[in-house]
Amino acid sequence: MSGSSDSEVDVLIVGAGPAGLMLALWLSRLGVKTRIVDKRTDKVFSGQADGFQIRTLEILDSFGVGERVWKEANHMIEVSFWNPDENGTIKRNNTAPDNMPGMSRFTECVLHQGRMEAFFMDAIAASYPHPTGVPPLKVERMVLPTSLSIDESKADDDDAYPVTVTLRHLTEEEATPTQKLSNLSDGLFRSNLAGDDVEAMLQKSEARGGAREETIKAKYVVGCDGAHSWTRKALGPDYEMQGEMTDYIWGVLDIVPITDFPDVRNRCMIHSASNGSLMIIPRENKLVRLYIQLSEVSTGQGRFDRSKITPELIFNAARKIISPYKLDYHYCDWWTAYQIGQRVGNHFSKHDRVFLAGDAVHTHSPKAGQGMNVSMGDAYNLGWKLGLVCKNVMQRSILSTYELERKQIAKELIAFDHKFSRLFSGRPAKDILDETGVSMEEFSKAFEMSHMFTSGVGVDYSPSALVSKPEEQRLIPEEDDQEIKSDQQAVPSNAQSTLDLATHCKPGTRFPSFQVVAQSGARPWQLHHKMPSDGRFRVFVFGGDVSQASQRDLVNTFAAELSAGVITKAPKASLSPGADPHAGTLRFKMDQPPSVIDVLLVHNAKRMEIETLRDLHEVYHPFDSKLGWDYDKVFVDGESYHDGHGHAYEGYGVDPQKGAVVVVRPDGYVGLVTSLDEAGRKEVEKWFGGVLRMA
Amino acid sequence: MSGSSDSEVDVLIVGAGPAGLMLALWLSRLGVKTRIVDKRTDKVFSGQADGFQIRTLEILDSFGVGERVWKEANHMIEVSFWNPDENGTIKRNNTAPDNMPGMSRFTECVLHQGRMEAFFMDAIAASYPHPTGVPPLKVERMVLPTSLSIDESKADDDDAYPVTVTLRHLTEEEATPTQKLSNLSDGLFRSNLAGDDVEAMLQKSEARGGAREETIKAKYVVGCDGAHSWTRKALGPDYEMQGEMTDYIWGVLDIVPITDFPDVRNRCMIHSASNGSLMIIPRENKLVRLYIQLSEVSTGQGRFDRSKITPELIFNAARKIISPYKLDYHYCDWWTAYQIGQRVGNHFSKHDRVFLAGDAVHTHSPKAGQGMNVSMGDAYNLGWKLGLVCKNVMQRSILSTYELERKQIAKELIAFDHKFSRLFSGRPAKDILDETGVSMEEFSKAFEMSHMFTSGVGVDYSPSALVSKPEEQRLIPEEDDQEIKSDQQAVPSNAQSTLDLATHCKPGTRFPSFQVVAQSGARPWQLHHKMPSDGRFRVFVFGGDVSQASQRDLVNTFAAELSAGVITKAPKASLSPGADPHAGTLRFKMDQPPSVIDVLLVHNAKRMEIETLRDLHEVYHPFDSKLGWDYDKVFVDGESYHDGHGHAYEGYGVDPQKGAVVVVRPDGYVGLVTSLDEAGRKEVEKWFGGVLRMA
Repeated sequence: MSGSSDSEVDVLIVGAGPAGLMLALWLSRLGVKTRIVDKRTDKVFSGQADGFQIRTLEILDSFGVGERVWKEANHMIEVSFWNPDENGTIKRNNTAPDNMPGMSRFTECVLHQGRMEAFFMDAIAASYPHPTGVPPLKVERMVLPTSLSIDESKADDDDAYPVTVTLRHLTEEEATPTQKLSNLSDGLFRSNLAGDDVEAMLQKSEARGGAREETIKAKYVVGCDGAHSWTRKALGPDYEMQGEMTDYIWGVLDIVPITDFPDVRNRCMIHSASNGSLMIIPRENKLVRLYIQLSEVSTGQGRFDRSKITPELIFNAARKIISPYKLDYHYCDWWTAYQIGQRVGNHFSKHDRVFLAGDAVHTHSPKAGQGMNVSMGDAYNLGWKLGLVCKNVMQRSILSTYELERKQIAKELIAFDHKFSRLFSGRPAKDILDETGVSMEEFSKAFEMSHMFTSGVGVDYSPSALVSKPEEQRLIPEEDDQEIKSDQQAVPSNAQSTLDLATHCKPGTRFPSFQVVAQSGARPWQLHHKMPSDGRFRVFVFGGDVSQASQRDLVNTFAAELSAGVITKAPKASLSPGADPHAGTLRFKMDQPPSVIDVLLVHNAKRMEIETLRDLHEVYHPFDSKLGWDYDKVFVDGESYHDGHGHAYEGYGVDPQKGAVVVVRPDGYVGLVTSLDEAGRKEVEKWFGGVLRMA
Repeated sequence: MSGSSDSEVDVLIVGAGPAGLMLALWLSRLGVKTRIVDKRTDKVFSGQADGFQIRTLEILDSFGVGERVWKEANHMIEVSFWNPDENGTIKRNNTAPDNMPGMSRFTECVLHQGRMEAFFMDAIAASYPHPTGVPPLKVERMVLPTSLSIDESKADDDDAYPVTVTLRHLTEEEATPTQKLSNLSDGLFRSNLAGDDVEAMLQKSEARGGAREETIKAKYVVGCDGAHSWTRKALGPDYEMQGEMTDYIWGVLDIVPITDFPDVRNRCMIHSASNGSLMIIPRENKLVRLYIQLSEVSTGQGRFDRSKITPELIFNAARKIISPYKLDYHYCDWWTAYQIGQRVGNHFSKHDRVFLAGDAVHTHSPKAGQGMNVSMGDAYNLGWKLGLVCKNVMQRSILSTYELERKQIAKELIAFDHKFSRLFSGRPAKDILDETGVSMEEFSKAFEMSHMFTSGVGVDYSPSALVSKPEEQRLIPEEDDQEIKSDQQAVPSNAQSTLDLATHCKPGTRFPSFQVVAQSGARPWQLHHKMPSDGRFRVFVFGGDVSQASQRDLVNTFAAELSAGVITKAPKASLSPGADPHAGTLRFKMDQPPSVIDVLLVHNAKRMEIETLRDLHEVYHPFDSKLGWDYDKVFVDGESYHDGHGHAYEGYGVDPQKGAVVVVRPDGYVGLVTSLDEAGRKEVEKWFGGVLRMA
């Protein structure tokens, strides 16, 4: 060992793929002292994941990154189903929207993972200088952990750094995978048909000697290090992936196709009569991704001949399936092959000090475009919780909700993938009596039914201190609901939601976005754009017609009591660099950090009849001695000059006569729905009491 | 002289403000060998121009830059008019949309000039590597031209470099204006109340001795060097600014206001009873710009006491006008003062070899937010013309249309500003009998009438080879129409437009944008997004219901003849780096450069009844041996899955039964409207014959 140094960090992230970078982005915005290490020399340049689901785009948009994906990506609007006709020739027999209309302002889109990684790095850099003065977080490449231990005696000590990790710094040569030299020479690199390369890297490094090592102490460590997760293995033999492999082998090709197949710019599901199945995913840059079933290499006994898998083999299989249409290419960007398997980790964390996220705890087939999304979803769920606990804003007990919430999603994903993969890989039924074949009606129906799940919008977290709802209120009762119910126990919220006050704001689901008009300035906004991922909780007050004195009194009394109570008692912290992703970076600093509870009023009075300062309590226009009154907290559900009416009350399911109060977590999920009165205000206090560290 | 070197460039741009950078962006996209020099050490960091008009946003969007402005800027949605009530207290007596609804997908917005300059530089960098292999264009700062001459004998020689310019390279110290050291110490820097600093710079440089000079030969030189334009002066005494100054002195403050004035986030026009007028422009970053009339320093004889002008004086004037509301601030970002004047240069070019653009040929008051926009508009008009002439795509005679088209706009601008400034600076009329006062009804009406002009959407260029229309067809007959008619003579187009075939596509005006749905992939697109600024001409074929055999024959016959005729004869050139600003950069190269004539079909058959390759001529799906067929040229005027129906035929004023053909210039202005038949095809041939260098 040539060198050794000690250092303390709040969070150490192992792995700088989409999950690790999403987590790093959250922690950079919250100003948490974080390091992120990755064994590779560089980010991904082609291939790998490419599907961006609706909810992922909403999340990226909350960091100001969504537009970059949205602009460069290919938007996936329509899906075509091609099946054999009576002569065995493929024919388009259905088209459908790829995403159910009305779910979001986004639709599914496709862009290669490397661009996303670049966007993440830009967004992380944009978090600095941070008001806390924390040094900028940068990805440390060619760094590999070699040991990890947890001091269990300090696991519940808020101020302790109970995790010790040794990191080895590799040289460029040690860290460069052979595959980088020729992208097309071995497409199986990083596929689940390939082994892991960590051992080889370490051996190379040890043989050379003199590698630099350092030991660091962390409050928290998160393994975002993929299907072969070193972190998971370091947690011991109790940490295992549970699930199964199928016999199906699939090849993947990213090409610029030269083809007369008419739907090549649609997402297509093609089942040929006897040559297997093909999925077409049109991508950016005139690329098209083909997923092709490889019947030649499947032995039927779960084994396959890896040496047989070449781009030519994959391409020839595609050609057969798409025949009689012609298919050729000049440019091939990337290829791989994989065996379909569905596995979930049995534990997502150890002592709520070391966590696993992404492929480290769930693997499945790539064709539903879920992998990168669910991985980023894990990290998005964990990031603010870790950050707010590190910053002494939130109680440490909240961390147990990570496994509660995300293991449930992983299980739902695996159940979905299991069903969908079998339907897609199976041979089309010849007729109604062909029981081993797959009915194309069944497949098409399953696809359409899956929209809520695959979009990410259907996520519905279980009750906990963060989600106040009756236990029986689960949104998606699937046929295999028993199987996917989480085994994690969580402390329930003390507060009680009154669901019928905001019928489309169900606790545990994401608060949807509708257009409202700014009281000051008349600009129409998606309400999501007023909920940047800055670590703040949001209380939406649906105040009804505040031009009526009685209603205005209700709204102002609620605000006054909230202000004197929970807002005074809640911690104040410089959480974010004030970067409002939709209005540029705020160059001028507030005199005082704002409350972690952000209150927004959505009324439906006539806009011209209201003046914010004259009519409304200061909670709705907080004052800062350097920046003056904040005119950006009051919105109208009304007609805009150029963009129509958002019908937000209708969208959120709020009766303007009754009003409602909705508490939204920093990740945009509904925590509580209650009433705009004394009783509701008490529920809000109880809800925050179970979550925040109150003064 | 320590050093001297010769070099040849196609275009030399003097001045790297918004006009110079817009021109540089065009030329970088077209791969033209260009240098751009600026005397300053750096771009603008605060203050200066801030208003982005609708047409400017459309133009920026065509380079892929519009979104960055749109995201960071404050959107200006509503304007309030405040006037004295019967007691002399200001009261809001009207509100109106800041832009007329329905003109565009954009509305006016506000962001400081320095951000725009940064975006330009990023966009220029993104033009490289360029397929022509031209070296990247970079702004050369601290460089000052010291002499300019034109070899008139070579002025009409296409291959000559008839302009000789000597450039002096300054040191950092020589080029740094004193003002940079303390932004607030002298806000009059760069105001029209300040003198020019070029002479001082040169004297400093000469006193020191040893400055590096170089002589370069250019095909074209463009002076984008502001109101004190060195280039204009170098063209000799015949080049002068014509116009007048008023007595009105205005101050400008950019502050983060602390105020209870309820409309501080609206654009406001406040006329006080006796303290003068105030305009409020709400900006990004919680900033607000105040334009304040300074009655204290106006002498009434066109003179003023410059030493009296301080931020305190300006602020106190604002306070008086806005009273009884309170106004304070903690942060002041920038301030300046100016005297209102309206001037236009008598010539915009010399021998069509040296051109003047922006403030170098028109100055006026800043309050209508026109300056930066009209300046960028000049450069946008000139850029593609210069670029396509340099690349031997277009005939040199076309260059005379620059003065024809832009002098007309400058004159319209000055006429508008003259009227608007007087109305805004004038004292409000006490009653109907008060003839020297300004009637507030008149002011408010003038403001609303001005929308078409101030938005930039009303621009309507005169007839020329590029604009085929009857001479009498001018869109905005203003009361002072005689005055603003251009004195430039232009060769008319040989082609004849048939205006009633596309009633909302008037030759000389910008082709508007409506949503259509991609035949392949079903994605909804604004048609503007299929018209990137890449130097290509576009022929829009409104083909009607092509599921009908007779209509399809018409559309395909038109295509076949166009293909055999003008498309074969037109030059082919690698014009742009293939950067489609709305679909990422195309990473894969075409085998052959595409035609400079891009043909797009907009039909209104049922989408599912059409298959591009089966039903349509290859002009609508051009083939490239490396990239295959282009599936991105056929669009449907139909319902989209998520974004409604664009009603494009209605929007463009095309009867689906008749169809139409619209030729659009590379800058998005309509050149010709004709019919979808043999006669129309001949008009298209004639139009291009007058513009391109045909084989």
